[in-house]
Amino acid sequence: MQSFQFYNPTRLIFGRGAVERLPEFLGGIRRVLFLYGGGSIKRNGAYEDVTRVLKQAGVEWVEVSGVEPNPRVGTVRRAAAIAREARVEAVLAVGGGSVLDAAKGVAVAAVGEADIWDVVLGRATPEAALPVYAVLTLAATGSEMNKNSVLTNEATKEKYGWSSELVYPRASFLDPAYTLTVPKDQTVYGIVDMMSHIFEQYFHTVENTPVTDRLAEGLLRAIVEAAPKLVERLDDLALRETILLAGTVALNGTLSMGVQGDWATHNIEHAVSALFDIPHAAGLAILFPHWMRHVYRVRPERWANLATRVFGVDPAGKSVDDLALAAIERLEAFWQGLGAPARLREFGITEADVEAIVEKSLARRGPFGHFMTLDADDVRAIVRAAL
Amino acid sequence: MQSFQFYNPTRLIFGRGAVERLPEFLGGIRRVLFLYGGGSIKRNGAYEDVTRVLKQAGVEWVEVSGVEPNPRVGTVRRAAAIAREARVEAVLAVGGGSVLDAAKGVAVAAVGEADIWDVVLGRATPEAALPVYAVLTLAATGSEMNKNSVLTNEATKEKYGWSSELVYPRASFLDPAYTLTVPKDQTVYGIVDMMSHIFEQYFHTVENTPVTDRLAEGLLRAIVEAAPKLVERLDDLALRETILLAGTVALNGTLSMGVQGDWATHNIEHAVSALFDIPHAAGLAILFPHWMRHVYRVRPERWANLATRVFGVDPAGKSVDDLALAAIERLEAFWQGLGAPARLREFGITEADVEAIVEKSLARRGPFGHFMTLDADDVRAIVRAAL
Repeated sequence: MQSFQFYNPTRLIFGRGAVERLPEFLGGIRRVLFLYGGGSIKRNGAYEDVTRVLKQAGVEWVEVSGVEPNPRVGTVRRAAAIAREARVEAVLAVGGGSVLDAAKGVAVAAVGEADIWDVVLGRATPEAALPVYAVLTLAATGSEMNKNSVLTNEATKEKYGWSSELVYPRASFLDPAYTLTVPKDQTVYGIVDMMSHIFEQYFHTVENTPVTDRLAEGLLRAIVEAAPKLVERLDDLALRETILLAGTVALNGTLSMGVQGDWATHNIEHAVSALFDIPHAAGLAILFPHWMRHVYRVRPERWANLATRVFGVDPAGKSVDDLALAAIERLEAFWQGLGAPARLREFGITEADVEAIVEKSLARRGPFGHFMTLDADDVRAIVRAAL
Repeated sequence: MQSFQFYNPTRLIFGRGAVERLPEFLGGIRRVLFLYGGGSIKRNGAYEDVTRVLKQAGVEWVEVSGVEPNPRVGTVRRAAAIAREARVEAVLAVGGGSVLDAAKGVAVAAVGEADIWDVVLGRATPEAALPVYAVLTLAATGSEMNKNSVLTNEATKEKYGWSSELVYPRASFLDPAYTLTVPKDQTVYGIVDMMSHIFEQYFHTVENTPVTDRLAEGLLRAIVEAAPKLVERLDDLALRETILLAGTVALNGTLSMGVQGDWATHNIEHAVSALFDIPHAAGLAILFPHWMRHVYRVRPERWANLATRVFGVDPAGKSVDDLALAAIERLEAFWQGLGAPARLREFGITEADVEAIVEKSLARRGPFGHFMTLDADDVRAIVRAAL
């Protein structure tokens, strides 16, 4: 293993009616910024529950809605200005990962001097933030229990992740009932997203990581068993519950213990969705198998383990390379079986766009990826294969 | 799943030289109580490293040694009195789970009015505690990353667990090199202890827990693969590293998400070691298979999963009951293969002692256990089978 630090102070409140417990964890907070997205929280019951609970507890709120699926710094700046003016004491995000990521930006931008995009770029380090609370309504990004946020600069068409210990949600409330009305495509995107997070941590070159490996494989196995049933029965609360918890554990730091994650596919996808505003997980579903085919020979045994331990491939008579390729095929078939897209051209992206994607993915830091360092030729090959 | 709350703010610093980072996490603390046990930390290098690091950082310390393997409230009271008098600002535990459990008691007893035994019994609730820091030198109890402590009242021969969010270690430093000199019997006890912790959480009657189940099975699998190699190669740093991390994850709350643990075997064992002062994990190794045989019919499928998913038993042609019994046999063979004891009589405990154990295990709260509630007849049957 590599030396590591694990730290995650978020309080996770999970189960039916979780949001009723919100006031217990507010401490003396009397005024919050209530941040949400496009209005799905008015259909799934979360808006009604949260406003009722806040009222009962005597907590005032200021609402800001309209956070985009790829949340924009402009939106964060606008919400932060309202938060300052209204002198709120916390940011309460109600929605999916985009709303949570935006809330983390607002929490920092509302109290500091630095512009939030400078924080994203690492040009400024936040020294304080409002406490963040989250009511999650979509199983996907894991933002409810980590210090990460991804924001898009709509002016420069850039999309980058940033993180700060200051923005760990103080408490996150996860009621699987709120996810019952998530439509099929969003459900599938959430599943692809959480599996991608596990893959980004699982494919590494660090030696002696059996504990983290087995935990990752176990979590993948639980997802692989539940997901196909869920897309057939979107209103099954037990399956929603399983997928909701899986998304949180996938990116709460547990699966990074002692390893060095890769994150190259995320970087390429961020370039794609910064340029073309496609759903993040659509890009991941399309790109990940091609990244895998491009790099697996560095450590084919890790894909062989994926084949046998997660997808149940019988190893008899197969080489490690056979098993590795079988894992990638099984994954593609699995995601496409759920209904995920397989080609960039489904979003109108063509050969003419390849160089822009290559350039954008390398613009900030040059060659990237820890499992295998990708340069322009590597990215070009992966993106072309995914067209 | 059951509704649950997960919260664990301990900062885990893991890897070679982890203790060098201690000063980073002390904040303004300038004076600590340095608590340890019987002196093994002077052989494994921890004492030398910790004192050097404290000196370099200009942090003063007061040493208290002599914490017992089953730590006693008398020792906690004595250390707390020294902590008060010396006006320390934190408790630094250096050692195994016993030292950590004692440190948690000292942290509470040094600042509150309540007697620590009243806290253990739940007659008093701590309202403050000194911050606890830990340098772990033994892979076993998981106390380095949880809010639990088990203390023994030597006067009344009682041994009970207690917990408080106030005693989560603020930071725990885990350097696998300190565990290289742990002798074989203590190494085996540590492995039995962490596996028992997983079992106490894994055997439950809650429906729909695939995420937690798969994580538990994955962790068990990692331990089952590493442990036999480790007892043959006690100086193998990679295996020490695996087992060290496994012990922490086994009881940091992750495997309790959404389930209701049992903890009956721990309760019986606490009665046994309160009366006879045998090593905690020796009692667990002896008692657990007999508890399993007594109760598995409530949910034999959980043992069948243990057989197939952890011990690799081929399910072909076997009933669920066959598989369940196979799992218990495999576990017994596994622990005995490592060198764990199998019978209470190896510690001089005989039929004449059975009633005292039964009485002690039921004394505090009557019938106990969540997987199956055990009354006096159940406990008697389990203890007799284990003689």
